[in-house]
Amino acid sequence: MSKPFLSLLSLSLLLFTSTCLATSSEFDRLNQCRLDNINALEPDHRVESEAGLTETWNPNHPELRCAGVSLIRRTIDPNGLHLPSYSPSPQLIYIIQGKGVIGLTLPGCPQTYEEPRSSQSRQGSRQQQPDSHQKIRRFRKGDIIAIPSGIPYWTYNNGDEPLVAISLLDTSNIANQLDSTPRVFYLGGNPEVEFPETQEEQQERHQQRHSLPVGRRGGQHQQEEESEEQKDGNSVLSGFSSEFLAQTFNTEEDTAKRLRSPRDKRNQIVRVEGGLRIINPEGQQEEEEEEEEKQRSEQGRNGLEETICSLKIHENIAQPARADLYNPRAGRISTANSLTLPILRYLRLSAEYVRLYRNGIYAPHWNINANSLLYVIRGEGRVRIVNSQGNAVFDNKVRKGQLVVVPQNFVVAEQAGEEEGLEYLVFKTNDRAAVSHVQQVFRATPADVLANAFGLRQRQVTELKLSGNRGPLVHPQSQSQSN
Amino acid sequence: MSKPFLSLLSLSLLLFTSTCLATSSEFDRLNQCRLDNINALEPDHRVESEAGLTETWNPNHPELRCAGVSLIRRTIDPNGLHLPSYSPSPQLIYIIQGKGVIGLTLPGCPQTYEEPRSSQSRQGSRQQQPDSHQKIRRFRKGDIIAIPSGIPYWTYNNGDEPLVAISLLDTSNIANQLDSTPRVFYLGGNPEVEFPETQEEQQERHQQRHSLPVGRRGGQHQQEEESEEQKDGNSVLSGFSSEFLAQTFNTEEDTAKRLRSPRDKRNQIVRVEGGLRIINPEGQQEEEEEEEEKQRSEQGRNGLEETICSLKIHENIAQPARADLYNPRAGRISTANSLTLPILRYLRLSAEYVRLYRNGIYAPHWNINANSLLYVIRGEGRVRIVNSQGNAVFDNKVRKGQLVVVPQNFVVAEQAGEEEGLEYLVFKTNDRAAVSHVQQVFRATPADVLANAFGLRQRQVTELKLSGNRGPLVHPQSQSQSN
Amino acid sequence: MSKPFLSLLSLSLLLFTSTCLATSSEFDRLNQCRLDNINALEPDHRVESEAGLTETWNPNHPELRCAGVSLIRRTIDPNGLHLPSYSPSPQLIYIIQGKGVIGLTLPGCPQTYEEPRSSQSRQGSRQQQPDSHQKIRRFRKGDIIAIPSGIPYWTYNNGDEPLVAISLLDTSNIANQLDSTPRVFYLGGNPEVEFPETQEEQQERHQQRHSLPVGRRGGQHQQEEESEEQKDGNSVLSGFSSEFLAQTFNTEEDTAKRLRSPRDKRNQIVRVEGGLRIINPEGQQEEEEEEEEKQRSEQGRNGLEETICSLKIHENIAQPARADLYNPRAGRISTANSLTLPILRYLRLSAEYVRLYRNGIYAPHWNINANSLLYVIRGEGRVRIVNSQGNAVFDNKVRKGQLVVVPQNFVVAEQAGEEEGLEYLVFKTNDRAAVSHVQQVFRATPADVLANAFGLRQRQVTELKLSGNRGPLVHPQSQSQSN
Repeated sequence: MSKPFLSLLSLSLLLFTSTCLATSSEFDRLNQCRLDNINALEPDHRVESEAGLTETWNPNHPELRCAGVSLIRRTIDPNGLHLPSYSPSPQLIYIIQGKGVIGLTLPGCPQTYEEPRSSQSRQGSRQQQPDSHQKIRRFRKGDIIAIPSGIPYWTYNNGDEPLVAISLLDTSNIANQLDSTPRVFYLGGNPEVEFPETQEEQQERHQQRHSLPVGRRGGQHQQEEESEEQKDGNSVLSGFSSEFLAQTFNTEEDTAKRLRSPRDKRNQIVRVEGGLRIINPEGQQEEEEEEEEKQRSEQGRNGLEETICSLKIHENIAQPARADLYNPRAGRISTANSLTLPILRYLRLSAEYVRLYRNGIYAPHWNINANSLLYVIRGEGRVRIVNSQGNAVFDNKVRKGQLVVVPQNFVVAEQAGEEEGLEYLVFKTNDRAAVSHVQQVFRATPADVLANAFGLRQRQVTELKLSGNRGPLVHPQSQSQSN
Repeated sequence: MSKPFLSLLSLSLLLFTSTCLATSSEFDRLNQCRLDNINALEPDHRVESEAGLTETWNPNHPELRCAGVSLIRRTIDPNGLHLPSYSPSPQLIYIIQGKGVIGLTLPGCPQTYEEPRSSQSRQGSRQQQPDSHQKIRRFRKGDIIAIPSGIPYWTYNNGDEPLVAISLLDTSNIANQLDSTPRVFYLGGNPEVEFPETQEEQQERHQQRHSLPVGRRGGQHQQEEESEEQKDGNSVLSGFSSEFLAQTFNTEEDTAKRLRSPRDKRNQIVRVEGGLRIINPEGQQEEEEEEEEKQRSEQGRNGLEETICSLKIHENIAQPARADLYNPRAGRISTANSLTLPILRYLRLSAEYVRLYRNGIYAPHWNINANSLLYVIRGEGRVRIVNSQGNAVFDNKVRKGQLVVVPQNFVVAEQAGEEEGLEYLVFKTNDRAAVSHVQQVFRATPADVLANAFGLRQRQVTELKLSGNRGPLVHPQSQSQSN
Repeated sequence: MSKPFLSLLSLSLLLFTSTCLATSSEFDRLNQCRLDNINALEPDHRVESEAGLTETWNPNHPELRCAGVSLIRRTIDPNGLHLPSYSPSPQLIYIIQGKGVIGLTLPGCPQTYEEPRSSQSRQGSRQQQPDSHQKIRRFRKGDIIAIPSGIPYWTYNNGDEPLVAISLLDTSNIANQLDSTPRVFYLGGNPEVEFPETQEEQQERHQQRHSLPVGRRGGQHQQEEESEEQKDGNSVLSGFSSEFLAQTFNTEEDTAKRLRSPRDKRNQIVRVEGGLRIINPEGQQEEEEEEEEKQRSEQGRNGLEETICSLKIHENIAQPARADLYNPRAGRISTANSLTLPILRYLRLSAEYVRLYRNGIYAPHWNINANSLLYVIRGEGRVRIVNSQGNAVFDNKVRKGQLVVVPQNFVVAEQAGEEEGLEYLVFKTNDRAAVSHVQQVFRATPADVLANAFGLRQRQVTELKLSGNRGPLVHPQSQSQSN
């Protein structure tokens, strides 16, 4: 057997291995929830911008594949502007820190914020026409913000501290008609890729199939002109020629060139020198604004459809007064779902804010109809997750900034640490996510069923059904006294 | 070429084969309904319990993959209790034989069955507090029972003969946000795995990928304590430490240990010595109860949402008087869908009960908007199924206990045997499943379209459109007389 | 190393290669929308019939996999009858040319078109019973026709020119519970396979797995009788024995044999000698009929459900007067969605008709909640499509008969050629498909956000926001004058 044959053979074997491994990883995807082990995840990738930071989790983590979601954490410096972008997946954003303003562009809705036509007073700074734009909204720490699929939005930090937000992209949502890859379309600027893992695979695959050098870009031999000019930026407008943009938008060539944003190094979060000038009702207290919006949303579903253009998109769920469950020794829980924030009906998402005091326990429970994603905002504690076979797939300490996936129906319990409390947010992939608590199931089950299921005596069953707190928030030391 | 190299080569080849075969089986899954052959399926696996038997169909059968469902047949002995369990997939259960009681635990619903507080009369048997629990329901042969996803339920045989039930788990239902693997979560006891095929694959895969000895369980090196104690049972509580359970539920350590159910050999169906003591309205006739429930359900959809806690979950469809289609010589058909049993709207499932008398034919028809699963309850007959290319993918005798998958739009016809009738149940994956009958399509089509489509003469078309029964239930010998 | 071993080795390698390549193509499917290049597609396969032509696009094109759809173009000669067929996927048909009649068979609906019982006048041609059938509908060029899943329909060309229609089969629609393979079930005749690509794969796979000679058909060894007779035609009735059909439909053996359609060479579109005789209200103008139907549909959703049997299934969207957007220099656009044609709510599909005059531009926009399929009816022009990374995945001339897939959220712009206009239809995979226009997003965004995003001066922003047309239809030369 000659040497060349041998190396050819090895090469072939190598080739098969790689192809087959690729498919083996696909095999996982189909059995995506056979998780014999769940890990607490921290961001895998960071993109630094002029005025902020974008961190993403690799969507190929088995846990995230199972839940069918992707996550992004953004830090926007004061005076930082996150450029307008949209995604085919609906997004739910939680504001961890800071405050800001957000502008969505709903198609078909009018520009309801207007500068007076005859405003001569500001002549120093503006010689042009008075501006107008769609409604903008103020938000702050503790807010949940809902962004429907395909709707562009921008965010601006008008506060004094960095604005930190965690966003869920529900890639397996029915609204996303593309595949499960997270996609963010930027309207402008020169954003850097936010999920490089999905990019690399693409190139690898490409190479493998066509045996062509990396860097070949699809469709080039078909394109007729301007291939040189094509693709300086990464925004969607950079894919059009400046000549076409000038024609279409009836602008000068220079303006059109800037729309394509060549060689902009600021990335997706840019600094606004001197602060962003927008039309913003002043003298209004944030609290008042909220009150007003609350009233509007309480008119319910009918109102929602009549006033789609003034739709409420955010709700604060971290305030103590907003608690849905409360135990003064153990902690509090509040929920935002399509009953409290009707837009969530369209997103099919909801959220839960949990604050456990020191040693406080959120007793074992499961999500009936949703996957859930637990993100630790502050403090430390321990999370236990059990699968259908009774295996503890997660039983670990968690700390600030970590993400834990709790698949549908898996039983989970959380406990705050001894030294500090635990504060976390749970994203849920259902707008009417419901929870079942083991303790409440015990109470609702006939004593004799429990006695036979667990081999307990009558006395023990009574203890199980009647001692302990009624609710799922428990403080271990205080239990016996409180009964 | 040396011997070692050769064996290394063979080994590699072997390895590739197995990996590639694994993916080839995935290939099937994606093209899961290219069935050139359908088989009648009998259970593949059995789990014997103290007081009953659980039989399951391997969910990897191409037919079951196409329909996206899993099936379980349970036999519960008299005084047998099937322990509380839940599943992320909605379940539809048909009672083949016997009678029993069932208890569901709906979250947020009160314990509406109560013993009087001052009950001194029963002091002999109970020294403890009076018991209370959620509503329980009686069921019997011929009932369809709907179990929503994530809702735990237990079942008890209070009759004199074995209780036999067949359950459909609709793993491809929108309510199941996990993958297509069937999962049953047991709240208590030490159940044995019901779908070992999905387990084995998991271990195999694990081994293959990590080249680690079998038995390594995920997450162990991360777990901090109690790894010894972890995992004696298979219920979801066995994944928690008894110390944590004692803290959470405020019970003694011994009670908590039993909640984890170590070394219980009774499996998922246990015997209740002396019969199960539950709070159960006596002196009521089953028939009366049904009457009452029927009236409630007739108030329709609005009533459903107002009284979610007293929701009707079952309906008898085997009674002759309940027939929707009837031909005294051929047979009868009754249907349960979201119009007769509103909860089915949430499950997106329905069922059809068919009884064909000797030689009776259910003429060719297809399911417009559902896959269907035909389970033979009694008797024998013959089933014919034709696919889109006109191939007879099934044309065989069927007998009691067999399951036949009829994919959406495939044309199917059933005929009872000459010696005994044929009784079967059809599960359908749509709560408003609709059927189109070939004969009725002929009647609704202009005569000249039929003449040209089939090359028939006018006389033959008239014969085709007007002779034969109007309905789909046909008795071959009686046809000519009856017209 | 001996020769035999070497060839065995090569054989094995070959075998692995093919298996792994099969899976590698599956890999694409999962990442089905990572399109770095989109191609304009022309039909890949043609089936010639006695009175027409069926052309199909290979559903394995990456673009079509991403959109989850299949396409068929049918040409029916005058007096040609397309035989009754149905599909588990809902269909949307656009009539490119000609006119005809269509008959749907809705289950449970009565035969509302009747010949009078005592019609002695036509005795010459018909000695039989008077005919009756379900409602038939007339359609013509410019009509969109909606066919729900599982509902059989036939089409007849009663005009003087060939009838040309393009049909979308939405295989990824929630109504299709089978896999993504397009399936057409013919009730009669001997149709030739329309999507041979999906067939071949099936046989290949079969061969590969079982190492059996081609032609083995599943289930044969299980079939008890008539295997010789089975399968002469390709219609669903050809899968039943003529004896069984005769029994079931109570017809003579000869009629039953013809139902199975052996050795019919006419394929799926047959010629009707002397024209099709159907019951058809005469003396009515098509326009009147439409008027009437329009009124009915305007009663909205409630009316739809009350009169499911007389449901409106088609709407003309090519008429100039029907335009929703109009610019006398650039072109016009009309849309059919579930608001204009309520049945589309059940199909979850909609359509857009676009006519661009010479040089006219449909400015950059994206589909918020739908994939879209652009089919060029007439003329020529240029289409540009940009993905989330700012790459121009398509930037080419398009001509009559070509199909271009525009995935959800990808930015697209169309421009008619210099010499002739461009007329195209867009199928959309959402019954309330919404579009966002880049120009309108600019207008709705605060000037300072645009200035900072694109590095523009105030003057340039004002130019961008206020110059140019308000609407998305633009004529490049006329822009500056029109403002």
